[in-house]
Amino acid sequence: MVDGIADFATKYGPWALIVGASEGLGAAFADNAASRGLNVALVARRAEALAEVATGLRDRYGIETREIVADVGAADFSEALERAVADLEIGFMIFNAGIQPGGPFLRIRLEDHLTCIQIQVVAPTKVCHWLGRQMAARGRGGIVLISSGAAQQGLAHWVGYGAAKAYELILGEGLWYELREQGVTVTSYVVGSTYTPNFQRTQRKHELPFADGIDPTAFPEGTPLPALPQDVAAALFAQLEDGPRLYPSPAEEAAAKGAAQMPRGDLVAMAGAASIAAFPSGLNELED
Amino acid sequence: MVDGIADFATKYGPWALIVGASEGLGAAFADNAASRGLNVALVARRAEALAEVATGLRDRYGIETREIVADVGAADFSEALERAVADLEIGFMIFNAGIQPGGPFLRIRLEDHLTCIQIQVVAPTKVCHWLGRQMAARGRGGIVLISSGAAQQGLAHWVGYGAAKAYELILGEGLWYELREQGVTVTSYVVGSTYTPNFQRTQRKHELPFADGIDPTAFPEGTPLPALPQDVAAALFAQLEDGPRLYPSPAEEAAAKGAAQMPRGDLVAMAGAASIAAFPSGLNELED
Repeated sequence: MVDGIADFATKYGPWALIVGASEGLGAAFADNAASRGLNVALVARRAEALAEVATGLRDRYGIETREIVADVGAADFSEALERAVADLEIGFMIFNAGIQPGGPFLRIRLEDHLTCIQIQVVAPTKVCHWLGRQMAARGRGGIVLISSGAAQQGLAHWVGYGAAKAYELILGEGLWYELREQGVTVTSYVVGSTYTPNFQRTQRKHELPFADGIDPTAFPEGTPLPALPQDVAAALFAQLEDGPRLYPSPAEEAAAKGAAQMPRGDLVAMAGAASIAAFPSGLNELED
Repeated sequence: MVDGIADFATKYGPWALIVGASEGLGAAFADNAASRGLNVALVARRAEALAEVATGLRDRYGIETREIVADVGAADFSEALERAVADLEIGFMIFNAGIQPGGPFLRIRLEDHLTCIQIQVVAPTKVCHWLGRQMAARGRGGIVLISSGAAQQGLAHWVGYGAAKAYELILGEGLWYELREQGVTVTSYVVGSTYTPNFQRTQRKHELPFADGIDPTAFPEGTPLPALPQDVAAALFAQLEDGPRLYPSPAEEAAAKGAAQMPRGDLVAMAGAASIAAFPSGLNELED
């Protein structure tokens, strides 16, 4: 692990690119990159939210920012992004964009499944292809693909989402091996339940408070509390070079290894029952 | 498990649809379906190979066949397929189509990565969506998604292939849970090294004989021998209702569970070294 700020910027600078950076985990990742002296290019659909994040980074760390308003769900997203950062030397990239169509697979509209694939399969593949080549030619760099616990077994009501996150998970693992001899650090990051604004929005029907912290009394007794985005982001940077598959905490990694030993039917049924209990309507709104 | 031929056809008939059926595993799956009394719709690009498989099925089992010449890599594949079988009652489907772009991820052309995604991510998603709805409405049916050992960890020289197969793996697991209460059996099938014509073609540089059987002396001492396609197909039908994730043999399942306990870096490095040793050129031809 690179400890010093100067070392981090030498290896991963001068620019970080955070895809999906308007709030929550993406904003927290951007904060960690900026705090290590990197300039940050931020990508999201909502210009106003993006400007707020960028202003905060410049104020706190005195770094440069670039705001790129773009829709990762558009077929030409990767090509547009490549043009938008053509004059920057991107040494670090976190692909954090995601969409979670919720509900039974057959009831979700096909176009939403295809958008899920565009955002979490096609777009990261394309971006890794052109950006990975730049980094490999330079002999240094870092790429992180944000996956999810939903990738580790089929998950009722998030079947397509989990499958797409499984694509990213295995893509990151394979690239870790192929690119490390070229000086490029790659890893997948398996993120669990995190108290992001998106989490809060999808849980509104449960009447949780919309807040930065967590009020444990707002969760049913015995429910595991979600992690805080700033903690999840810090844990990534603390173990960045320990890939190919990272977890926010040793407990989550241990739980995943334990789950992998269960009979698959028991595991998938247990996870499915839990996800349906958490979202009984079967269809959470897609507001992000 | 449905034992009798009549029971199988009642639950999964009258038509099976095999996507990717011109040879190897697909032809063996079709043979198993036909031997249980199902008519079989066969899909592949090569009309001549398809006709040969279909003729064999009709001769051996006296069932009906439909040959559908189509490219799973085409963007409108699923829509064309839906039209081509609109007059048939499809009660069983195996999605076996695949493509394995081989070589370092950054050296493989982007268009080949995108074709890999079309064939192994977009196409099965679309087909499961329309065919799953038909089966759920009918209250019976079966769907099998053919995955690969390459899906279980990042695999050097098949990074994109493995990621796409991971998508199919998790898609099948999730659908297993969501559709079982609607009477539809779904499973993923994690296939390992199999002595198909495609395997033989990609191994030609190793000067293996092109044959139906396996000559062990043609493999380096200590190399695990590939399975025979007819055995892999028979093992699927023998455990069809034991999903959500099936393996051709208990030994392969045990090996996968053991691998899941290894430190990920060790596992990915071990798998990567083995795949590079098997294909040292890094680029196998794509002839299928």
